[in-house]
Amino acid sequence: MNGAFDDWMKTVQAASENDLSGFLPAPAVVPAKLHAAMRYALLGGGKRVRPLLVYAAGALFGADAAILSRAAAAVEMIHAYSLVHDDMPCMDDDELRRGKPTVHVAYDEATALLVGDALQSQAFLVLSEADSIPAARQVAMLRLLAHASGSAGMCGGQAIDLDSVGLSLTLEQLEQMHQLKTGALLRAAVVLGALAGKDLEPAELQALNDYARAIGLAFQVVDDVLDATADSATLGKTAGKDAADNKPTYVSILGLEPSRALAQKLRLDAHAALAPFGEKALRLRELADLIVQRKA
Amino acid sequence: MNGAFDDWMKTVQAASENDLSGFLPAPAVVPAKLHAAMRYALLGGGKRVRPLLVYAAGALFGADAAILSRAAAAVEMIHAYSLVHDDMPCMDDDELRRGKPTVHVAYDEATALLVGDALQSQAFLVLSEADSIPAARQVAMLRLLAHASGSAGMCGGQAIDLDSVGLSLTLEQLEQMHQLKTGALLRAAVVLGALAGKDLEPAELQALNDYARAIGLAFQVVDDVLDATADSATLGKTAGKDAADNKPTYVSILGLEPSRALAQKLRLDAHAALAPFGEKALRLRELADLIVQRKA
Repeated sequence: MNGAFDDWMKTVQAASENDLSGFLPAPAVVPAKLHAAMRYALLGGGKRVRPLLVYAAGALFGADAAILSRAAAAVEMIHAYSLVHDDMPCMDDDELRRGKPTVHVAYDEATALLVGDALQSQAFLVLSEADSIPAARQVAMLRLLAHASGSAGMCGGQAIDLDSVGLSLTLEQLEQMHQLKTGALLRAAVVLGALAGKDLEPAELQALNDYARAIGLAFQVVDDVLDATADSATLGKTAGKDAADNKPTYVSILGLEPSRALAQKLRLDAHAALAPFGEKALRLRELADLIVQRKA
Repeated sequence: MNGAFDDWMKTVQAASENDLSGFLPAPAVVPAKLHAAMRYALLGGGKRVRPLLVYAAGALFGADAAILSRAAAAVEMIHAYSLVHDDMPCMDDDELRRGKPTVHVAYDEATALLVGDALQSQAFLVLSEADSIPAARQVAMLRLLAHASGSAGMCGGQAIDLDSVGLSLTLEQLEQMHQLKTGALLRAAVVLGALAGKDLEPAELQALNDYARAIGLAFQVVDDVLDATADSATLGKTAGKDAADNKPTYVSILGLEPSRALAQKLRLDAHAALAPFGEKALRLRELADLIVQRKA
């Protein structure tokens, strides 16, 4: 890591926290308990990987600042809602998230269900309330976010994940699941950041998709490595969960060291995909490094 | 009821069923189980009140047919997702819906959670995929749907409902809850249908809001009357549920006959609000009558 990147990251994380708070209804607004629980789920934690990707991609084409902050908040709201629902007893049944009790533990299951539902609506609301870019591009951004969130994206990946518990997946099947479950939203973050600057040429979109595909897979490979090697305190969530739940992982299929090597290869793939963008892709390159080298 | 209205209604219901099917991923598309469960939740039942309102309001200003069918499908997807989640064990814990086992009974809780999540995304996707009206108006429609669905609308009303179990609400508090829980989406249906035709003048929007407020409340008053008086076979869902769950209702606060009288008054309020639109509001007037006079 270098100082300039660290400073940039802290600045974006602080801006995102501030924006996320501002884009939620005030905690005193009725229904106050729901709004407090939405804040609990969304604020005060998280690495903000998706907002960082939105801002890093925004640097490629001189993005409009107002739509950039809305896109970053919207993607993070979708991510946060998915964590709230994934943690519920009928899904992963997890009690710890970002070092805090999960929403259904801190509140109750019904509230957790509504918090997730309302955060998803809020994501589309925040992105639809911008008025600083051409409306046709804004519609394209809303369409991209909806596609990445639904059954052809994140929800679809989650469904495949559920159905794969106890099965022995091939590497290709595991990759397909993760490309939907986490990859689709990471890709949306990158492309939304770029779209905040301008309409994209097919070659630009292809390069960004290649980058996003590489970091999406790398993200999951590293997640699996950390789940198998780090402790709960470091992760801020229950470690060793995948093995305990009998879920297929890169580590269970490839082994630990080949998984680490794969993550490094994907990091270089990500760098290669960014070549056409030159120096403006600096932060995207550094984020690929961060995703692979993170410890939690 | 009259023959022409019945015919119109059957035509819209058939078109909606067809559109809803067409706007979902094909059942063979991966993940097939999730897509099958989304179809189970959305197709083959329901009165399609919201699509009927969208089409009826579409008649006011000669709506674009393509965006009208997308708006009708989007609102119905939001409604269907809310039913799937509301029926789950941590919420109303209901086993019967539209005469069929609820999604978490027919499948499982995790699938029901994902079906609701994915249907919400799909609603925004379907509305964002249109390209037949000016993009700025399309953004306004997406914004309206997001606002009506989230914590300032349907989800917020559901949260207030949860918190009011066992409490003794005033009539004003009960009305506020229902204006969010069911009223917001009914209003969205009416306004989306009108927006499919043109940008709205403030006076037009006000008249439509007044109409939607009246039918929204009437809808709930009649729901409470039916819950207290009809049987499960007629309703296609468990009757007497509100009283059993100790939920405040119009019948429990006002009594049965005053509730019926209130529904009739609201029907006339709805008619009065439509006066400025003349003959073009015929279907909206007839729908107000239907909502109050329905038996299930």
